Amino acid sequence: MFRAETTNGRPHLHLGWSENALDWNIEEERIHFVDENGDVFQPNYAYDPRLVKVEGTYYIIWCTDFYGASIGLAQTKDFKQFIRLENPYLPFNRNGVLFPRKVNGHYMMLSRPSDSGHTPFGDIFLSESPDLTYWGKHRHVMSKGGEGWWQAVKIGGGPAPIETTEGWLMFYHGVTGTCNGFVYSMGAAILDLENPSKVKYRCKNFVLTPEEWYEERGFVNNVIFPCATLHDADSGRIAIYYGAADTYVGIAYTTVEEIVAYTKEYHEVIGEDPLEGNM
Amino acid sequence: MFRAETTNGRPHLHLGWSENALDWNIEEERIHFVDENGDVFQPNYAYDPRLVKVEGTYYIIWCTDFYGASIGLAQTKDFKQFIRLENPYLPFNRNGVLFPRKVNGHYMMLSRPSDSGHTPFGDIFLSESPDLTYWGKHRHVMSKGGEGWWQAVKIGGGPAPIETTEGWLMFYHGVTGTCNGFVYSMGAAILDLENPSKVKYRCKNFVLTPEEWYEERGFVNNVIFPCATLHDADSGRIAIYYGAADTYVGIAYTTVEEIVAYTKEYHEVIGEDPLEGNM
Amino acid sequence: MFRAETTNGRPHLHLGWSENALDWNIEEERIHFVDENGDVFQPNYAYDPRLVKVEGTYYIIWCTDFYGASIGLAQTKDFKQFIRLENPYLPFNRNGVLFPRKVNGHYMMLSRPSDSGHTPFGDIFLSESPDLTYWGKHRHVMSKGGEGWWQAVKIGGGPAPIETTEGWLMFYHGVTGTCNGFVYSMGAAILDLENPSKVKYRCKNFVLTPEEWYEERGFVNNVIFPCATLHDADSGRIAIYYGAADTYVGIAYTTVEEIVAYTKEYHEVIGEDPLEGNM
Amino acid sequence: MFRAETTNGRPHLHLGWSENALDWNIEEERIHFVDENGDVFQPNYAYDPRLVKVEGTYYIIWCTDFYGASIGLAQTKDFKQFIRLENPYLPFNRNGVLFPRKVNGHYMMLSRPSDSGHTPFGDIFLSESPDLTYWGKHRHVMSKGGEGWWQAVKIGGGPAPIETTEGWLMFYHGVTGTCNGFVYSMGAAILDLENPSKVKYRCKNFVLTPEEWYEERGFVNNVIFPCATLHDADSGRIAIYYGAADTYVGIAYTTVEEIVAYTKEYHEVIGEDPLEGNM
Amino acid sequence: MFRAETTNGRPHLHLGWSENALDWNIEEERIHFVDENGDVFQPNYAYDPRLVKVEGTYYIIWCTDFYGASIGLAQTKDFKQFIRLENPYLPFNRNGVLFPRKVNGHYMMLSRPSDSGHTPFGDIFLSESPDLTYWGKHRHVMSKGGEGWWQAVKIGGGPAPIETTEGWLMFYHGVTGTCNGFVYSMGAAILDLENPSKVKYRCKNFVLTPEEWYEERGFVNNVIFPCATLHDADSGRIAIYYGAADTYVGIAYTTVEEIVAYTKEYHEVIGEDPLEGNM
Amino acid sequence: MFRAETTNGRPHLHLGWSENALDWNIEEERIHFVDENGDVFQPNYAYDPRLVKVEGTYYIIWCTDFYGASIGLAQTKDFKQFIRLENPYLPFNRNGVLFPRKVNGHYMMLSRPSDSGHTPFGDIFLSESPDLTYWGKHRHVMSKGGEGWWQAVKIGGGPAPIETTEGWLMFYHGVTGTCNGFVYSMGAAILDLENPSKVKYRCKNFVLTPEEWYEERGFVNNVIFPCATLHDADSGRIAIYYGAADTYVGIAYTTVEEIVAYTKEYHEVIGEDPLEGNM
Repeated sequence: MFRAETTNGRPHLHLGWSENALDWNIEEERIHFVDENGDVFQPNYAYDPRLVKVEGTYYIIWCTDFYGASIGLAQTKDFKQFIRLENPYLPFNRNGVLFPRKVNGHYMMLSRPSDSGHTPFGDIFLSESPDLTYWGKHRHVMSKGGEGWWQAVKIGGGPAPIETTEGWLMFYHGVTGTCNGFVYSMGAAILDLENPSKVKYRCKNFVLTPEEWYEERGFVNNVIFPCATLHDADSGRIAIYYGAADTYVGIAYTTVEEIVAYTKEYHEVIGEDPLEGNM
Repeated sequence: MFRAETTNGRPHLHLGWSENALDWNIEEERIHFVDENGDVFQPNYAYDPRLVKVEGTYYIIWCTDFYGASIGLAQTKDFKQFIRLENPYLPFNRNGVLFPRKVNGHYMMLSRPSDSGHTPFGDIFLSESPDLTYWGKHRHVMSKGGEGWWQAVKIGGGPAPIETTEGWLMFYHGVTGTCNGFVYSMGAAILDLENPSKVKYRCKNFVLTPEEWYEERGFVNNVIFPCATLHDADSGRIAIYYGAADTYVGIAYTTVEEIVAYTKEYHEVIGEDPLEGNM
Repeated sequence: MFRAETTNGRPHLHLGWSENALDWNIEEERIHFVDENGDVFQPNYAYDPRLVKVEGTYYIIWCTDFYGASIGLAQTKDFKQFIRLENPYLPFNRNGVLFPRKVNGHYMMLSRPSDSGHTPFGDIFLSESPDLTYWGKHRHVMSKGGEGWWQAVKIGGGPAPIETTEGWLMFYHGVTGTCNGFVYSMGAAILDLENPSKVKYRCKNFVLTPEEWYEERGFVNNVIFPCATLHDADSGRIAIYYGAADTYVGIAYTTVEEIVAYTKEYHEVIGEDPLEGNM
Repeated sequence: MFRAETTNGRPHLHLGWSENALDWNIEEERIHFVDENGDVFQPNYAYDPRLVKVEGTYYIIWCTDFYGASIGLAQTKDFKQFIRLENPYLPFNRNGVLFPRKVNGHYMMLSRPSDSGHTPFGDIFLSESPDLTYWGKHRHVMSKGGEGWWQAVKIGGGPAPIETTEGWLMFYHGVTGTCNGFVYSMGAAILDLENPSKVKYRCKNFVLTPEEWYEERGFVNNVIFPCATLHDADSGRIAIYYGAADTYVGIAYTTVEEIVAYTKEYHEVIGEDPLEGNM
Repeated sequence: MFRAETTNGRPHLHLGWSENALDWNIEEERIHFVDENGDVFQPNYAYDPRLVKVEGTYYIIWCTDFYGASIGLAQTKDFKQFIRLENPYLPFNRNGVLFPRKVNGHYMMLSRPSDSGHTPFGDIFLSESPDLTYWGKHRHVMSKGGEGWWQAVKIGGGPAPIETTEGWLMFYHGVTGTCNGFVYSMGAAILDLENPSKVKYRCKNFVLTPEEWYEERGFVNNVIFPCATLHDADSGRIAIYYGAADTYVGIAYTTVEEIVAYTKEYHEVIGEDPLEGNM
Repeated sequence: MFRAETTNGRPHLHLGWSENALDWNIEEERIHFVDENGDVFQPNYAYDPRLVKVEGTYYIIWCTDFYGASIGLAQTKDFKQFIRLENPYLPFNRNGVLFPRKVNGHYMMLSRPSDSGHTPFGDIFLSESPDLTYWGKHRHVMSKGGEGWWQAVKIGGGPAPIETTEGWLMFYHGVTGTCNGFVYSMGAAILDLENPSKVKYRCKNFVLTPEEWYEERGFVNNVIFPCATLHDADSGRIAIYYGAADTYVGIAYTTVEEIVAYTKEYHEVIGEDPLEGNM
């Protein structure tokens, strides 16, 4: 497991290990990245990391500093050497999420184009790459808003999507605005297996919203921010790790069966995207 | 020559023809774009187009609507059929400029990452592509600001760079902020021929700033916005077409010799970019 | 009792019943409104409802969507059929409060003109109507601010005013701004019985401010928002229902005698309104 | 003709007289308003007046100070005594326009709900009154935006509507936003004679936009703000008086025939208003 | 005469000479400042300078960079050596104006406390100093606003006050805000000779406002900014130099007799400052 | 001990007494200030007071109203008569902190230049005075930001500095911004004894940040704001009184030895201030 930890006043990535997925030893020393030539290639800052295994290699995707918030990408095979790859996108971007396998022969990544500040808007997009260096065929996946007041301001991808028979199960965060700031909740959607820019089902309700004191009160109040899952393929059990109030890490449990059924039942039917054919 | 013209309340691209490069006939009908299968693929809006010829094909790069301002890209060989390609980047972006030849075997494009509004910041970046579909190896080229108060708020690429013996001659716009709004001026810089993300010379002065009534007064006051050049390789003469007050098109004349000499003489020496090696 | 509850992602009004005024059964199904012809006339959203009985008919006044926040109005005699009347005002408005009897033969309503967002200002006004359809003779009642820092940003009416021998007892909310957002407290004032646009006494202190965890922490932190009272005419006892942190419903108890005495004792003497005679 | 003139640093209304409708004598002394009892009832400030005759009485409608911008209303029969009536609406409002006759037995007024500042939004609404004191049955008439970029920010009524066989001919202003401020243009629409909240035709183009120096440059740049018309019923000729750059008064000429035909030809077809039946 | 001129992209001060006060030779080289030990003490930037002679020494007061806009101060006796003194105030401040003689044995300076940006507010204050190093006894002189809409946003001192029999004649600028930006006009006031924090007369009208094209159109539209006067004590004639549209220098002529009479005639009577005795 | 308490809706200063420094009796009556002539000289409001003894006299320094937030200064010898002195600075300023002894024969005061609102920036400056009336030789001490994200927005002095063999030990607050508001933490720095504008050591970590419920939740969430210390010179023990969530007073304990060692160990090495020699 990865954690963004503050070293010298800026957040950086640290490796963590656990026997039981509940108690974690997090290394004091931050991860050292090198480029493909082995030269030091350290991010100025790094936070909100996701870890995903694709074809036997582990990839880390995080929010990095590229003259503003953008997406960083690195790989490791052994958790000893970490090779940082090219940044997939121009700034400004956050919430990059790599898919756990190629789709139609290409790597797939979700991201949320942002602005240079706290970004009072934001939709989820999909990009693909033949080689993890060059990215294109960018597609819009889903918009903030709709019937869900809890996601009226912005949305962003969370853990790597989980492949199910119904499609890619995607947990994400949705943000609403109050007169006293943002509230981050967790939602769920199911994307088409072969064309993940197509949303098959999207739950109009949140599936988790801040109600516990450790979710409502902390460095940033009222935040549930999912970043990682453990998924037991046999039983369908899912553990979702989420940032709580930007201060704690919470875990929520569900099963594939339960969450897929719930998402389909409370699917929000929205008209065809008027921009799809003509943008 | 291309012009963004308003049809049905949104700006679109129209083709124009001229015998003398001063008097233009602009077609009533907007350009019709198709995708690579020949299907209609029209932008919702299109403005600030640039036209550049690379290896015998003409490319149009413009500001398009992709859930916000982003870069559109199309090609034509005959000015009859216009094939729209994939959008190179995620939103938000403006001022996309393609280089007139490949560099090290790759297409090169300048752009200015933006936000969803009038964007009170902005630097020029470079991206490359093997195939005009997938883009990567994004690099920062130059920042707003420095000694130049006239470019303190943001900068953005203008016409396609002109290849000179000193490097790529790039005209661009720089924007400053006053208590009564933005002022757009034109600057000049010279980029390394083989590595255009490296700035060899950058003139600390503007080379043109609004002083005529048609530059100071119009739909948007105080704007000089260069978009195209005609360059006579033999004589070195350059005609720069620029938007004036978002209402008129002005032309300014110079020569390669003159502008290169001026840019080198008034080169602004700035320290090494502290982010270059470690971002 | 009424509750604004979220159905399909937008808040709507639901009817609730209680034996003891503490434990409530709230109906799953939202209230169905019809117009005076019996046709469906449902609000797009509805929140902050007040319920008041005038001459044997119950009226609901709420914040409705009329191209922005405005005041909705409906009547029922049996809590089975709910007839929605004309919206009393143009947008933007919130905190509409009907008086429990006509004054000088006219219906009277308090409201708080607002803007299209979170409204960082706001005073309480009075309007009258001969027929609940046409409204006029709008008067300013009282301003935010004065000596009360706790109501420096805006104020708004709360429960229906309670008729006392001293005048109309009005509980209201007052809002102050901190560097971390708004704080909503409850105040009290006494309006002239025959001319309710005239403030006889206005307590310079708040009478309740967020201090309990369920007032300070929730969907919107630091909110006490009074909406309804139960008033026992014989004993003078008052129960005030108030929204706490936009998450809970709190109840505070007082008596007419106590609150009137307190309001008179801590009456804030402010000079004559300079705009009264000449606006 | 009326003019808002600054007396003692705030704008007030002054009466003007002309033989030829081009050269005007404007009285030094501002208009003195009394209430219905003959007592002084002077506005704190007054600007953007409209003058309209209904059933033999002249009415002045202006932007007045009622704890913020709102609509003032007064009548005169002889231009000697001016009786100020009740303000029709709560604040905040601007651009009140009375119809030149009753419709279905009621007075009709257009207005543009606003906010407490420069109001970066705004649609046109209709209200009716049996007696000019109480107003209600508020309806939304038309929205900013649509295909017309020139009216993307806000719209507001202008001169009193002109009755034609096609409907009420309404000139109005539409505002767009640029990075250097607002641009005000003039549009035209035709409202249903019997139900003026229904738009029959709305021209998608502006009919006048700032292009002359006295429209582009002045106290507020780039403003065309229509306020009054002279209409010769026999010939159909129309003279439109408009504020230019908040500094000058311009006149534009057209005919009923011409402007109606143009508006119908360039009618913008917009879908049914989704809020009409269910608000 | 002094001029702020841009050298290397930031404004700096340059000395100018004139035979006739109309045609000026401005030195190419900026003024070199030293501290009291003769060491280089150059401002990072310098603009809006005022020059005033006190007891045989010339003083320059300008807007300087002291971790934000603040007041710089320097002296010269020969216009060859310029000794920079301590900055009188902490940031943020602009429009520092030294009096041409001591009052009650102390140097006197007007200034306008500001913020770190374009400062949408601002009043004129007075400070005194025994030695030009330490400053105190700060007093409020006059506020923006009052009846004068043209000075509703902020005001700031201009040229050094002129001593008259009626008091110190002070020209200053007043700023109002429109939906398209600020408008700067020139006002006049007369301060008490012995206690210049006391305003004897303040003209409620502006005495000059942008009406010429070179005042309305330029780098910053609609600006009249007075900075210097020539005053012929015998004849009473005054020439006022003012910045026009932040682009040109204009000159306006008046006489002491005329401007004093006008200021007294149109004196705005405002109530006693409620904060005077108890701040 | 002093406390700012709300009387009549505005905060004022009240004297408090304690036997054990934990339980305090705070006087009901606010402190009455007189000027040097014995006339009433009461602040309009007063908050964030600091109390410091210099050469046998006690001084109170607070945030006062001087046409906006500024620094108030008063002295007492007996806690019975409180003589208010001149305000040291022009507005806008907060967090004034007097040194407990003269340095090089002059009084020394830290302050934080501010703006007229919640001030989203701010550095600590030093000023000196020969007489507590006139102030000058203003110097910049330290900037917000650096490596410390927790002080990225602004910083401000806290209790009076404590003289140690290493220098002046200064506790201060640092503020960072989140999408849901500011977070105030406490930092520590050591200033040069003879030239306190020179920072010898500055801890890059905070020394206390909101983690307890009474620090995270209250009138203003997430605030630790140090204002006073008790320092036992013999043992080196320090008790730091700090405002918690703008609602409570907390106490934190340390020793000179411990905090100085920690500050030196985690000293943040920042390059020379580029503005030092040339501002």
